[in-house]
This record gives sequence, C-alpha cells and structure tokens, in this order.
Amino acid sequence: MIQKIDHIGIAVQSLEEALPFYTNVLKLRLLGVEEVASQQVKVAFLELGESKLELLEPLSKESPIAMFIQKRGEGIHHVALGVKSIADRIQEMEQNGIQMIDSSPRIGAAGASIAFMHPKSAHGVLYELCEKKGVETHG
Amino acid sequence: MIQKIDHIGIAVQSLEEALPFYTNVLKLRLLGVEEVASQQVKVAFLELGESKLELLEPLSKESPIAMFIQKRGEGIHHVALGVKSIADRIQEMEQNGIQMIDSSPRIGAAGASIAFMHPKSAHGVLYELCEKKGVETHG
Repeated sequence: MIQKIDHIGIAVQSLEEALPFYTNVLKLRLLGVEEVASQQVKVAFLELGESKLELLEPLSKESPIAMFIQKRGEGIHHVALGVKSIADRIQEMEQNGIQMIDSSPRIGAAGASIAFMHPKSAHGVLYELCEKKGVETHG
Repeated sequence: MIQKIDHIGIAVQSLEEALPFYTNVLKLRLLGVEEVASQQVKVAFLELGESKLELLEPLSKESPIAMFIQKRGEGIHHVALGVKSIADRIQEMEQNGIQMIDSSPRIGAAGASIAFMHPKSAHGVLYELCEKKGVETHG
C-alpha cells in the first residue's frame, strides 16, 4: 500500500541560505527548484536514495509554510508517503476513520497528485499521500 | 557520502496506542521492538521501502523524548541519514563548521553507530548520522 518515503518536506526561511548546507556539506544533488503558487512556496528537491528532501520557502506571509515557521521555527513540516491509486488510498484511510485534510487528490510540486492527512489522526505527524505522474516505462 | 534516509524518528506517548495506525491502517510491517536504556526509550521499527520509521516511547520523565513531547507534542523528532565510516563523516561535518551534539559515535538502537548534529547547524532539523553494523556480505 505504501511503497516508500517519497520525500520529507522541510520548512526553511530562505532556500538561498539553506541550500549550501544540503549541497556543499551533505553533498546531496539538487534536482530542481519550482514555485507552487497555490501554496505560496518555492520548492527545492534534493536526491537522497530512493527518497527526496523537499525544502519549502514561503513566498508570502499567507503561505502555510510562513505560518508554520512563525509558530515553530524552521524544521520538518511533513512526510510524504509514496502510493499508487491515490484516490483508492484516500478512501481506505477514511474507511479506517482517518481524517483527511484533502478528501480528494490535488496537484502538488512536480505535478504529483497529493492529499494530506490530519495530524490528529496520525499521532502528531503531518503525512502526505503522494502519487507521482506515470513517467516510468513498463517491461 | 549520505546513502539514504535510514529512518525517521517519531515521538509517541505510547507504542501501544500508536502502533495500530502504522500496522493496521498504513499496513507497514513491524520489524521489532527494543528498549534503549541510555535514552530511556522503547523503540518500534517499521519497514518503509529502503528506510524505516522509528517510533519512540519515553520510559521516564527524564527521557529526551518525554521532554520533546511535553514541549511540542507527539510528532517527528529526527531524521537519520545512512552513512558509512561515521567517524570520518563526523570529522568532515566539523571541518565544515557544523556543530555536532555527539563528536564521536555512540551506540543506538539495533546496535547502530550514531551521532546527532545540532539543529542550529541544520536549519532547525535534528539530523542523526547512522551507520549500521556490517551484516552485508561482500562480493
């Protein structure tokens, strides 16, 4: 059902200030940077085994990431679990009594279909279900 | 240098209360439960792709995990990065100006050699370097 940790989302004040730690000290490969206007964030992806780190910089004070940093400081924001057939997975979660923030998938960074679970249903962790666009070839 | 996310450490009040979400709802496989007396925690490992989730239940009020939960509630405590030659990695970190909580490796759950980095040096994230005991065969 869950295939892997797709990525860990990390809230930072500034990509410019945070990226050197990841690329120069930890020596992780930067895969790309994009803006997600709906969430008012600029996102940088770093490769880490089969997973990624997703650094999230707020683009406005209204961004959920800006509010997170104001409340708790920079740090880990969410864990994204890689799934297939995300609509079915959401349905299973709800059948198990899990409260979803997104009861149907929406489009996140890199064109993935995503849905957040309410942390109250997951012992304080903000989990995202994440289904990547089908770019793999088969056979 | 960093090979993968070895595990994500998650602070919970009670393994008994938290485990059903992970094993029955997310359907992750429970790999084992052990006590780490030096940290006053009981630990449950769950398989998740090449990584693991490490649920941490405090065994006393003096446990660092008890203090974390009291301050911030249940939730993500640390991210462990899988490395080889951990002593060399610690030295590299310090040469790069990173403040280590552990300036030499110590033994953590499952007999791994571990060392924590100070979150001030990592934009608010508590990273652990983690080297597993050599159980793989070579060639």
